[in-house]
Amino acid sequence: MLSAEIIAVGSELLTPERTDTNSLWLTEKLMDIGVEVKLKTIVGDDEARLEETIRDALKRSDIVITTGGLGPTEDDVTRTVSARAAGREVVYHEELEAHLRERFRLWGREMPETNKRQAYVIEGAEILPNPNGSAVGMLLNDGGKFLVVLPGPPREMQPMFEDHVLGELKAVSGKISVVRRVLRVSGYGESALDELISPIYKSYPSIQTSILFNRSEIEVHLSSSAGTDSESAAIIEELVGKLVGVLGPAMFAKNGETMEEVVGKLLKDRNETLSVAESCTGGLIAMRLTDVSGSSSYLMEGVVAYSNDAKKRTLDVPDETLASHGAVSSQTAEAMADGMRRRAGTDYAISVTGIAGPDGGTDEKPVGTVYIGYADADGTRFLHMTIPGDRYLIRWRSSQAALDYLRRRILKKQ
Amino acid sequence: MLSAEIIAVGSELLTPERTDTNSLWLTEKLMDIGVEVKLKTIVGDDEARLEETIRDALKRSDIVITTGGLGPTEDDVTRTVSARAAGREVVYHEELEAHLRERFRLWGREMPETNKRQAYVIEGAEILPNPNGSAVGMLLNDGGKFLVVLPGPPREMQPMFEDHVLGELKAVSGKISVVRRVLRVSGYGESALDELISPIYKSYPSIQTSILFNRSEIEVHLSSSAGTDSESAAIIEELVGKLVGVLGPAMFAKNGETMEEVVGKLLKDRNETLSVAESCTGGLIAMRLTDVSGSSSYLMEGVVAYSNDAKKRTLDVPDETLASHGAVSSQTAEAMADGMRRRAGTDYAISVTGIAGPDGGTDEKPVGTVYIGYADADGTRFLHMTIPGDRYLIRWRSSQAALDYLRRRILKKQ
Repeated sequence: MLSAEIIAVGSELLTPERTDTNSLWLTEKLMDIGVEVKLKTIVGDDEARLEETIRDALKRSDIVITTGGLGPTEDDVTRTVSARAAGREVVYHEELEAHLRERFRLWGREMPETNKRQAYVIEGAEILPNPNGSAVGMLLNDGGKFLVVLPGPPREMQPMFEDHVLGELKAVSGKISVVRRVLRVSGYGESALDELISPIYKSYPSIQTSILFNRSEIEVHLSSSAGTDSESAAIIEELVGKLVGVLGPAMFAKNGETMEEVVGKLLKDRNETLSVAESCTGGLIAMRLTDVSGSSSYLMEGVVAYSNDAKKRTLDVPDETLASHGAVSSQTAEAMADGMRRRAGTDYAISVTGIAGPDGGTDEKPVGTVYIGYADADGTRFLHMTIPGDRYLIRWRSSQAALDYLRRRILKKQ
Repeated sequence: MLSAEIIAVGSELLTPERTDTNSLWLTEKLMDIGVEVKLKTIVGDDEARLEETIRDALKRSDIVITTGGLGPTEDDVTRTVSARAAGREVVYHEELEAHLRERFRLWGREMPETNKRQAYVIEGAEILPNPNGSAVGMLLNDGGKFLVVLPGPPREMQPMFEDHVLGELKAVSGKISVVRRVLRVSGYGESALDELISPIYKSYPSIQTSILFNRSEIEVHLSSSAGTDSESAAIIEELVGKLVGVLGPAMFAKNGETMEEVVGKLLKDRNETLSVAESCTGGLIAMRLTDVSGSSSYLMEGVVAYSNDAKKRTLDVPDETLASHGAVSSQTAEAMADGMRRRAGTDYAISVTGIAGPDGGTDEKPVGTVYIGYADADGTRFLHMTIPGDRYLIRWRSSQAALDYLRRRILKKQ
């Protein structure tokens, strides 16, 4: 099995606020083609340390991938330092400079002179085009060892790796088949879920199973490299079938889909429409739904009714409801969903009202108190929850719970 | 300034699902005592690579901290490998074994024999007690170089570091004051900004300056350890003043604030209110604004008018406007802002309509075409942009541009 090391370059990745995530994505892609990541390094814009790191990695491992440090400023040293570590020069490419000038011209700007350094490439390296940015990548095959130099922004790095690197590495790795599936489950805690399903997945020793908690849902990662792709896929499918048998609708995604994709697909398949009335989630649910391309065919309208006036004015929540039960109550949640649905004329409406904190909690309604409202042609319903976490998590989990509630209501109709 | 390297040990940290987070916490603690983290490594349970990594780190840096790999199983190699890398033996401590046996007895279990290896410690190292687990840590002061070996679980690692390591390192670092500032700038590209401001920051060699691009804004990170805290703060303040002189309102944050915090503070200070009408951003602007605790005092209402019907019904966009100019037009953007402001009765309203893609673009209005509308008591205005990127980036950058447009309009009134 080929070994790889990943080196993330950039002083910002050595601050308490930032971490390298490119290597996670790269690790997954490398696993798929049977390459094992043995070491990861994060190094700043520090020429000596970067050079030593790349040189040591090239000694130890078959494949060395760097990300970042290819920008146009003086801090961006990966281009020259990686060449030095590989014992090569950098050479100037006139056509790269011409291409850069043309890019800037199309944006209506003149190319700053500093960008010229992006026209230099390691001698003998293949140039990897970057349709999404100004820094090209490089792939150097040095007597069977690979040095791959990629830009840092994921939107530039990922397509470059998939289009120009993966195939070449796959050809040399000898391709061990790995089939993977990600399942997503709502409404269970991590250990409760594991207790329930571990007797099942343990009877499939050829499948690697790991359970991960991710903000508001549990992910079950399955992978198998036991046989051919279709053999692995078949045995994973068999296990998924048994897990569905135990978990029922709690397993909302069988192929890694997000909750907003699952809800969107349900609505699209049924040719039905949705509107959303949000208070404490402040637009998060609408934002998630509209993140999905094509959502305009089912998501008609959303209202962020942050003030009581907005709840009355735009959602027709009665004065008396707000006065006698408060803005955070099942009655207000149901009235919001009902008003939203009538305004937008949609098949369904969902609503959320709650206390996201850190302020605004009371003994009776502490921070994390959330009411979800639901409306369809048959009337309204609500769900009451107390959600743990900080403001960010309470909002996120509220949005997830609202989408999940809608999903389960729709499934009941089928 | 002392330099440090952090080495996270454990094969699980080399999977696509997991990442090392201990180093973020440690980096913050080290920065506070004037120690700079120069490199981070993540290495599996691989004796040769781990030994080389620790040995190289000890050569390059003043302080080397490892986390993880101190458990009782065979995979846990950090204890013996770190000793070897430091050129030392491990020595058996009878009192540690007795202590471990006692811990197990208190849990009502017998100590498995494998745990005995946790009674071995690097020769000459200080033993760091672990009240929260079975693995003690180690601190080796090797002629002024420090090797600190810590357990992996954060609830064991963190108190051990704070109680037994921080004080010792602080004493040798001589507590150099480090003062940091993060500035944020809108409306410039990375290299154009650098060209503009590098002559200024380069005349302050005692301030470390780095420029980072972050989705839709440029961050300028400044840090100084030239003197006392107040001296460093004063010289940074002087540089910030000069940068403001050149950048004017393009520098929207002088202390790391987000755009939504800056806009929120402006509104709060002026005691004014806002409403938001969104089409292609689908709730993202409202979501960002309401991410800020206390936003209910200025953000009154938001409407996600995804369908044309919603634009007419809730925002009073005239039929003729949509028919003759289309949903993505300056006229619709202005009408949306105007309708939103009149509905919510707010001082300001902003709106966004555009084509986020990947579908829906035409020759005349390609993907990335975005119109931002603005309304106040004096009337309406608009801004037209063509934004590069994928759906996610177009939506994010649209939301940023809309908030920035509002911010600049408000500043003009002051």
